[in-house]
Amino acid sequence: MNIVKIGGNVIDDPEKLAGFLQGFAGLPGKKILVHGGGKIATKVAKELGIESRMVEGRRITDAPMRDVVTMVYGGLVNKRIVATLQRLGCNAIGLTGADGAAIQARKRPVKTIDYGFVGDVEKVNTPFISLLLQNGLAPVFAPLTFDAEGNMLNTNADTQASEIARALSGTEEVNLVYCFEKKGVLKDASDNDTLIPRLVPETYEKYKNEGIIYDGMIPKLDNAFAAVRAGVRKVIICEADDLAEAVQGAAGTTIEL
Amino acid sequence: MNIVKIGGNVIDDPEKLAGFLQGFAGLPGKKILVHGGGKIATKVAKELGIESRMVEGRRITDAPMRDVVTMVYGGLVNKRIVATLQRLGCNAIGLTGADGAAIQARKRPVKTIDYGFVGDVEKVNTPFISLLLQNGLAPVFAPLTFDAEGNMLNTNADTQASEIARALSGTEEVNLVYCFEKKGVLKDASDNDTLIPRLVPETYEKYKNEGIIYDGMIPKLDNAFAAVRAGVRKVIICEADDLAEAVQGAAGTTIEL
Repeated sequence: MNIVKIGGNVIDDPEKLAGFLQGFAGLPGKKILVHGGGKIATKVAKELGIESRMVEGRRITDAPMRDVVTMVYGGLVNKRIVATLQRLGCNAIGLTGADGAAIQARKRPVKTIDYGFVGDVEKVNTPFISLLLQNGLAPVFAPLTFDAEGNMLNTNADTQASEIARALSGTEEVNLVYCFEKKGVLKDASDNDTLIPRLVPETYEKYKNEGIIYDGMIPKLDNAFAAVRAGVRKVIICEADDLAEAVQGAAGTTIEL
Repeated sequence: MNIVKIGGNVIDDPEKLAGFLQGFAGLPGKKILVHGGGKIATKVAKELGIESRMVEGRRITDAPMRDVVTMVYGGLVNKRIVATLQRLGCNAIGLTGADGAAIQARKRPVKTIDYGFVGDVEKVNTPFISLLLQNGLAPVFAPLTFDAEGNMLNTNADTQASEIARALSGTEEVNLVYCFEKKGVLKDASDNDTLIPRLVPETYEKYKNEGIIYDGMIPKLDNAFAAVRAGVRKVIICEADDLAEAVQGAAGTTIEL
């Protein structure tokens, strides 16, 4: 099965999103989509007079901002995607972590920074997600979870996708696919012709030592290798448009052991 | 099983809503909640600079307003209710009509008034809703449906509850419960002590002829009798606080044949 994460910059571009959703709807077999938030939340918050504060690329989610992301991610973005997938013949069901207690989290403890209503995933409800998959439904997750106190929590979509993939890998052969704006992991970040089609631990070490893979790619790839070590069959990093080819191994970068 | 509709004025009052949800969480057996929108959509729309237009109590839903109701009803209100029910031990799953293709509708044709993105229910997906119920889930529906063109549509919560009740009455014994701010159908609308505990077609006719039931109650009760004639076991109209008693026949007005 395929668990596909689509980032905010694709969601912000209606044309790109439509193309991607066509690709997702066409994927055979069991599948799950996890979507990011995009800039709509920031725009809506601004219009509502709520200031967006980011620390190291992470959104500080106070109570008014939590309501905005619940509205925008869980309502507007999620239901737009679901309605489009339904039109494309894909029986999508939009979910947050709270729905069916799919993904329970813990409000992040305050250390030096108070991130507010941000959740770290604690428990994925695999019987519930499997029930939906077995009945031909395609779960579409917004980047939101909940805690035992009844709070909705803002949660990183990459992490959420990875946690779902790990949990389901106990019973399914899971591919975890990260779609973004580049062709995959590139030797030269500015040149799509320098794609690295496959990374295993040895080549990853080699490219890191040679300085070809550096900076922001390292934590992403460390997380990808952690997922395959935890039982995910492979992680694929690809451009949103190339989803269909990438799951066949014909596009993007495949990360495996 | 019980299908319960809760109106916007309860949703707008956090304390009343909390009490109601406690009652709903405690209902034994299969259950579905259908919620209205409340005034939050109007407030959010106003802050976003979108004008709310109502005709005969119905919201005109142009494209910007459709986005607002999708956000507010499908995101904020729905997920708040779901997270609260989860805290109360009720395994709620928030849905719009688009999710799992639960409730498909048709965009209302323009006659004298263009209501915009407003949906009239065409098809309730009973196998999908039954699947959730059989697995111990409590569906929580926002007043939103979708059409075959991939549009989200604003839909009246009363109608949505009634359509779900009729569809499920083919396979289940269904009680349809409308919760609002009064004790039930009253002989004197200003006096909660004048509750009519039970209405059958004969007494309904009598009260209408005597002018005791009049105006706005007539279409509501006509719809209730239409539902019981279509197979719903009984319709109950009660105060939100009295839900537990009302489903036992100990509060509210019970409408049956």
